[in-house]
Amino acid sequence: MKSVININGKLFNENDAKISVFDRGFLYGDSIYEVTLTYKSHPVLLNEHIDRLWESGSKIHMPIHISKEDLIFEVYKSIQKLSLERVYIRIIITRGEGEINLDPTIEQQNNFIIIVKELPEYPKTWYENGVSVIIPTIKRNSIDSTNPGVKSGNYLNNVLALGEAKKKKAYDAIMLNREGYISEGTTSNVWIVKNGEFITPPLSAGILSGITRSVIFKILKAENISVREENFTPETLKSADGVFFCSSTKEIVPIVKVDDQIIGDGFVPQKIKHLSALYKNFISQKSV
Amino acid sequence: MKSVININGKLFNENDAKISVFDRGFLYGDSIYEVTLTYKSHPVLLNEHIDRLWESGSKIHMPIHISKEDLIFEVYKSIQKLSLERVYIRIIITRGEGEINLDPTIEQQNNFIIIVKELPEYPKTWYENGVSVIIPTIKRNSIDSTNPGVKSGNYLNNVLALGEAKKKKAYDAIMLNREGYISEGTTSNVWIVKNGEFITPPLSAGILSGITRSVIFKILKAENISVREENFTPETLKSADGVFFCSSTKEIVPIVKVDDQIIGDGFVPQKIKHLSALYKNFISQKSV
Repeated sequence: MKSVININGKLFNENDAKISVFDRGFLYGDSIYEVTLTYKSHPVLLNEHIDRLWESGSKIHMPIHISKEDLIFEVYKSIQKLSLERVYIRIIITRGEGEINLDPTIEQQNNFIIIVKELPEYPKTWYENGVSVIIPTIKRNSIDSTNPGVKSGNYLNNVLALGEAKKKKAYDAIMLNREGYISEGTTSNVWIVKNGEFITPPLSAGILSGITRSVIFKILKAENISVREENFTPETLKSADGVFFCSSTKEIVPIVKVDDQIIGDGFVPQKIKHLSALYKNFISQKSV
Repeated sequence: MKSVININGKLFNENDAKISVFDRGFLYGDSIYEVTLTYKSHPVLLNEHIDRLWESGSKIHMPIHISKEDLIFEVYKSIQKLSLERVYIRIIITRGEGEINLDPTIEQQNNFIIIVKELPEYPKTWYENGVSVIIPTIKRNSIDSTNPGVKSGNYLNNVLALGEAKKKKAYDAIMLNREGYISEGTTSNVWIVKNGEFITPPLSAGILSGITRSVIFKILKAENISVREENFTPETLKSADGVFFCSSTKEIVPIVKVDDQIIGDGFVPQKIKHLSALYKNFISQKSV
């Protein structure tokens, strides 16, 4: 794996990139993060990701001691060092390191870590033929406990949901919230297409406010295609004309099977292929 | 701080004790842990802690590649190196390191970390005069999302609850579960004394199965003192004759104030002092 890891401004290779075992990110998952990728060596929607990182920090009352400008500078520095056209970028900020004490009000200096690595080629079959998902037994964390709207180092909920999916040979899991409505995938937002409309759960369902999700709203509105937020049940999901995931790194991944239910006729609907093309076009224009 | 850190069998001092940023414990909180202390250089109830560590691993389907015997050997090795009578011991096992992928079914080798450090002297006033707590707005994670019965690296829920307490100058927070019942403190189980009976929430309330909690059951039963599990509300908590926390490191900490409500007459009840003495006696006998 080709990679460069930036820890508090110093660059390391994969084997030397280490963090203190007293870091709160390691001890408690007391960290926030963002993931994006590059198109033509340009980080996609970096400002949006940096803004969301700050929003995550604000939601868990984590002071951030580096400026947005300095962090963006460090991202570019790391990308340039790796010098590949297409890279995966993960930016992590932790609440810092010191004594072992859960108390988040103890004054500590953040650690920031930027991992830049070669972007894997995702299998073409995901995009051409779609993937299968399951609805796991584990429920999505609630907004008033461990808020899914915060992109934090507490991802065990998602890890266990994905574990259930992998045991059933599925690509991913779509978790239900406590009210029994669809929330999101383990690293993606979820959408259905029904009667020509694009529908995705509202933020109040307990989901991450996805950046790709926002871009899709923008694109569909510009095309005068009907798009809205609405809670829906697993039954509505399974009886949709089309279903898909969206995320910054994997972009638009069609879903053709949920549990044992084939979606529509089992092929990727034209409307999803069309959106996918519009999305790629949007991103490549953003990366000129 | 005097400390020794054992990482996969090698001993480090505080400044050199580092873990890969690709470790799943750091990336996702995908780790399990235990904490105990020593009495007369003897780790208290170590077998019980090791057993619970394995139970946490089992609940999140984490394979553990080291044997219990070998891990216990490593704990003793670390304690002997530090050579202090009273130490704090934290044992962490992570699902390992490798590529960045939430999937827990990818074959990886665990990392284990044992942190041994000087045990702080806790303030006498906690034990003699009691502490104050709050009931925070944040709710305890649910059993079917991020199970509080698993001692994992996902502790943001507790971090944020403690943050609410610290902002109100309280010692700790006692979280409610989704049903509105009392669950536990951020690192302790909670008890009330009412009409001469000792009562603590059942495991079904969404709490850690505390080792000190179990010992208290054993001690009280041996003394023919009435003790039981029962769900109770914040109102019952506030109107109790006595309230206290129990944990492996802080043992029995009386609580004399919940939100703005003074408990009983505001002094530590004799029954709690008596239990505390019985507990200390039990532990010192266990550590001969």
